[in-house]
Amino acid sequence: MDLEPVYAYVDAHADALLADLFRLLRQRSISTQDDGVKECAELLATQMREVGIDATVYPTARHPVVYGEIGPAGAPTILVYGHYDVQPPEPLELWQCDPFEPVIRDGKIYARGSSDNKGQLFAHVKGIQAYRAALGELPLKVKFIFEGEEEISSPNLEPFVAAHRNLLRCDVCIFSDSHVQENGRPLVVLGLKGMLYVEITVRGADRDLHSMRAAAVPSPVWRLVHLLAALKGEDGLVRIPGFYDDVRPLLPEEIAAVEAVPCDKAALAADLGVTSLLVNRHGDDYYKNMIFEPTCNISGLTAGYQGPGSKTVLPAQATAKLDLRLVPDQKPERVLELLKEHLARSGYADAEVKPLGFLEPSRTPITHPLVAVARRAVADAYGVEPYVYPGIGGAGPNYIFEKHLGVPCLTIPFAAADQNNHAPNESMIVAGYLNGIKTSAALIEHVAAFFSRQANSSSKE
Amino acid sequence: MDLEPVYAYVDAHADALLADLFRLLRQRSISTQDDGVKECAELLATQMREVGIDATVYPTARHPVVYGEIGPAGAPTILVYGHYDVQPPEPLELWQCDPFEPVIRDGKIYARGSSDNKGQLFAHVKGIQAYRAALGELPLKVKFIFEGEEEISSPNLEPFVAAHRNLLRCDVCIFSDSHVQENGRPLVVLGLKGMLYVEITVRGADRDLHSMRAAAVPSPVWRLVHLLAALKGEDGLVRIPGFYDDVRPLLPEEIAAVEAVPCDKAALAADLGVTSLLVNRHGDDYYKNMIFEPTCNISGLTAGYQGPGSKTVLPAQATAKLDLRLVPDQKPERVLELLKEHLARSGYADAEVKPLGFLEPSRTPITHPLVAVARRAVADAYGVEPYVYPGIGGAGPNYIFEKHLGVPCLTIPFAAADQNNHAPNESMIVAGYLNGIKTSAALIEHVAAFFSRQANSSSKE
Repeated sequence: MDLEPVYAYVDAHADALLADLFRLLRQRSISTQDDGVKECAELLATQMREVGIDATVYPTARHPVVYGEIGPAGAPTILVYGHYDVQPPEPLELWQCDPFEPVIRDGKIYARGSSDNKGQLFAHVKGIQAYRAALGELPLKVKFIFEGEEEISSPNLEPFVAAHRNLLRCDVCIFSDSHVQENGRPLVVLGLKGMLYVEITVRGADRDLHSMRAAAVPSPVWRLVHLLAALKGEDGLVRIPGFYDDVRPLLPEEIAAVEAVPCDKAALAADLGVTSLLVNRHGDDYYKNMIFEPTCNISGLTAGYQGPGSKTVLPAQATAKLDLRLVPDQKPERVLELLKEHLARSGYADAEVKPLGFLEPSRTPITHPLVAVARRAVADAYGVEPYVYPGIGGAGPNYIFEKHLGVPCLTIPFAAADQNNHAPNESMIVAGYLNGIKTSAALIEHVAAFFSRQANSSSKE
Repeated sequence: MDLEPVYAYVDAHADALLADLFRLLRQRSISTQDDGVKECAELLATQMREVGIDATVYPTARHPVVYGEIGPAGAPTILVYGHYDVQPPEPLELWQCDPFEPVIRDGKIYARGSSDNKGQLFAHVKGIQAYRAALGELPLKVKFIFEGEEEISSPNLEPFVAAHRNLLRCDVCIFSDSHVQENGRPLVVLGLKGMLYVEITVRGADRDLHSMRAAAVPSPVWRLVHLLAALKGEDGLVRIPGFYDDVRPLLPEEIAAVEAVPCDKAALAADLGVTSLLVNRHGDDYYKNMIFEPTCNISGLTAGYQGPGSKTVLPAQATAKLDLRLVPDQKPERVLELLKEHLARSGYADAEVKPLGFLEPSRTPITHPLVAVARRAVADAYGVEPYVYPGIGGAGPNYIFEKHLGVPCLTIPFAAADQNNHAPNESMIVAGYLNGIKTSAALIEHVAAFFSRQANSSSKE
């Protein structure tokens, strides 16, 4: 398996490969503001066609899906997922350049969407170009599904995938929508957390009252405090009965993979401005907690007077916003049920629990043979062994592909950890973009070789 | 004791008495905005002089105190407290009239300050006029202290009182800055609650983080929840050790007085939109709780994202604003100490506790002989027996007079319960203003008679 011609092609054509990405970055595609999204879908399809991919723009209820495929019929298939929509660039005054006029400075491309996710998805498009230019026609099929709604919670992705199972049929799904390790080493990530987002509101009197009434009229704020204290103990453990029951037991290989990740807890705590990291069921190991520990976080709390100084009021209501990040095999719908049952049993049946989001967790077992194949492809392209993370703390749509297509999902990020995604001065490391193109081509070669060996061995049996 | 000539005078001169009040109401005196306060002090002094009171405007560090006195030297003395400053009238669009151009509608005077407190303090000024016109010179001395800073927490009142003990020397202090019973019956109120206002802030990382970090980084929001739960139990009792230790035991007469107040708990709860009233140490009796129960109320709670929908964030800090209303003989400084000690012992020594206000509670014992005198004076003027409240839920400066002058403080309100003070369309009931003038004159007569009897009986001993 000699990928050197591919790598040489990428290095020799770096300027042109960057120029093509800049064309995509210049096209606005702010999904929440309906700004340029359709135009971006068309441009992306055009740029896919330019490298030989058969691309189609599929309308959905809101923003289009760009689908494409290339490669021999009936061959093993890689499906690449990405999203071409971006976050709003505001606040503009904090940018050091126009967010839609990319510039390179100190080895980084600065532009909205440069890492999240145009720069990373485009590496896969350009991987096709590099492979074909250096090695000829593809040994397998590559399909692409690029959505325009990831930044608005992908409302149409699951319906689209469910309705196009045949079109999307594949053997493995590749995501590149994250970042490499803080120390620069590449990663193969095997899953994401799920999420249940709920807003809990407790009501008291039908209007705010003078706080002298607090002696005689029940306070919804105190009720919310006690309700919340019933959800999580001072020990950090979630107190909802059954919450941990569906947590999938860890494989020894998964634990070993996380233990192989270097972690300077003192430096991490100092960087965050805290005196120590949380102690959870797995102790205070940062990566073990980030990867394996489900959470019940309070994202927001609001009641009564919040301005400067003092005001004396007995508030009419109090609200908490909770995001519960779930690990396999917890299900957000089930956790919502458990939460509601627990509140009812604890005397808070009157609290209004409004679910605002459901995302399922995902985790491809580390023992899946394609994990080793992906590791070797990444090591080949980057020249250094990747770490394997059984999961990461973020949530995302990976589970949709696992669930509807029944395939392993591997996240292989190309962005650097300091990418500033969703923030001003978002950047994509130039080396990451070029390594991404190499990695994409290497994956084609390594995955094709794996299926070829598998076919040979099964034909011999 | 024939007060009929006074009452007849008030009824015969109602229009002129109202016109004089309107002159005072037209003068803006918004203390927090420094709008017209000095001009109002001068006008009030002028109006006091017009009825024979020797009035002086004393400057303070901010807004002036208007002091006045009338009556024979060396005689028993009543000190009347009031405040001539008002709350801002905003939001103006909710007023049905110009807040500084009083109108009478349905037996009520509508204007900012009409009840809080110009209409009530002016009844005492006009009580002098009515008494002298009907009965001649006063049988005792009446002093007046009208401040211009009550609506901004009276920052200069205690220093002024402490510095003018001789000037203010008296035998009883009368406040008229509250409202009569909801059913219209007059009240004699013997005290106010005190208050400790604190803002508690808990900090986590030095910036808001993506909520995926909640698996590994301590949350200040959860710490605030558990800290608060350590301050008050689900049973409603304050959990700060020693909090209740200084609560003064109740006199049987105090309990009996409150039990004499009619209370329809179901109607109260229905009016407030709650299913039931709080159960505290004294059960769920509304007035017992409002009068006797110290509170620990959460006036405000703030952390993280509070807008519509969902956002996933691990907040950097969380803050609660607490108002603790105290009863005799709790002291706000002592309660702050107990609170801090409790937090330190409970593992929250790092929480920032910022005191924003201290007010002491006050309560004249119901057995004080002047209480019965005041009851008879009010019954005489109103033609109906007042209820006696050993205290009310609000806080205020009464304790300053108790503490520095060593005299009982009696609150005898003239405003109706629906006065809308601090709100748009503030009103003062016309009958309350006129009854207030009568009550003020009746107090002069009854208090003078009491001291005269006392002098006689002690001279006979």
